[in-house]
Amino acid sequence: MSQLIEQLQWRYATKKMNPAKAVPQEKVDRILEAVRLTATSSGLQPYEVILVTNKEVREKIKAIAWNQAQVTDGSHLLVFAAWDNYTAERINAMFDLTNSERGSTNEGFEAYRQKLLSLYPPRPAEENYAHAARQAYIGVGTALIAAAAEKVDSTPMEGFDPAALDEILGLKARGLRSVVIMPLGYRADEGDWLVNQKKVRRSRKDFVTEVR
Amino acid sequence: MSQLIEQLQWRYATKKMNPAKAVPQEKVDRILEAVRLTATSSGLQPYEVILVTNKEVREKIKAIAWNQAQVTDGSHLLVFAAWDNYTAERINAMFDLTNSERGSTNEGFEAYRQKLLSLYPPRPAEENYAHAARQAYIGVGTALIAAAAEKVDSTPMEGFDPAALDEILGLKARGLRSVVIMPLGYRADEGDWLVNQKKVRRSRKDFVTEVR
Repeated sequence: MSQLIEQLQWRYATKKMNPAKAVPQEKVDRILEAVRLTATSSGLQPYEVILVTNKEVREKIKAIAWNQAQVTDGSHLLVFAAWDNYTAERINAMFDLTNSERGSTNEGFEAYRQKLLSLYPPRPAEENYAHAARQAYIGVGTALIAAAAEKVDSTPMEGFDPAALDEILGLKARGLRSVVIMPLGYRADEGDWLVNQKKVRRSRKDFVTEVR
Repeated sequence: MSQLIEQLQWRYATKKMNPAKAVPQEKVDRILEAVRLTATSSGLQPYEVILVTNKEVREKIKAIAWNQAQVTDGSHLLVFAAWDNYTAERINAMFDLTNSERGSTNEGFEAYRQKLLSLYPPRPAEENYAHAARQAYIGVGTALIAAAAEKVDSTPMEGFDPAALDEILGLKARGLRSVVIMPLGYRADEGDWLVNQKKVRRSRKDFVTEVR
């Protein structure tokens, strides 16, 4: 069994976190670095992560997240927030940064920039947001693994009011829309109904079809 | 630097694969196992993976994927295909499997089943598909990491005609819609314009905002 598979077996959506135990900053930093490094479509990174430690802000978030206690019992809260639209400015900024970091331009890469500029900004904002939100889920999948690799517990959550969260964090003014929140912390010694339950997945044959 | 961060630094969207070098089956199996084990919303696993090795089928897929050579130069092709809808049958199947595997039922868990049954099936199919497709991207993010952990190259691709691919693989009849394809293989010794280019990401401060 590979280390990754062990980590995926170990992790679970923690239902009860220990409020007395904080995740060390260097672990949080490595989790965020993994998310920053992972893939997105065309490398545009069309989302941001808001790292919330402020307890009052997390109390407000908990109130619009079905009062799920992990939001405040964890020590850190990640908020994945997708771009509300692909604009020419955002696309150009990423291509310009890439050229600047690589110290060169590339004809094929510039043609690709033009292709995206002609394709994305004219589309409805909602279609672009939907595409950006999907990329954020790559980040969610990465954060889950990165947390497990650090033996940090996490609980990915879609159960919150996105419009209310965007209001609390001022995301709308920044052109962002929250899609997933993820408390980080440590499982409590007691009170987590899920911790000792078997992880259940469909069998390989019910999940993977082979075309040989 | 953690092993995961090293793996994420190593990987890139391979542009030219070596058609003479196949990925060993046990590596493919571990990549698929990681995808099978990772998280999805409510644990519903609302997608499937089609593993295509058949060369003729991959030639057909390449033709509707901008002729990207990795589709046939790689040795294996993963197709991530999301449920086209959440139905009561699909939701019940997952809850029933979970109860059966755990050998018990749980009042809270059964209440949650009823909540999903009242919430998801009445929604428009398109909204449910959009939600399912997001979960598949957690799988995509997991597969990227799992491949890198095996020192296997991969290229996640959205650049294909999903309706045509669904037709080639007979997915519509199975209630599935393709969302991402991912060739697995090994980078070619020559001819990959991207392999030696610096990986560029926004800086931590432009990617992460802290609310302390």
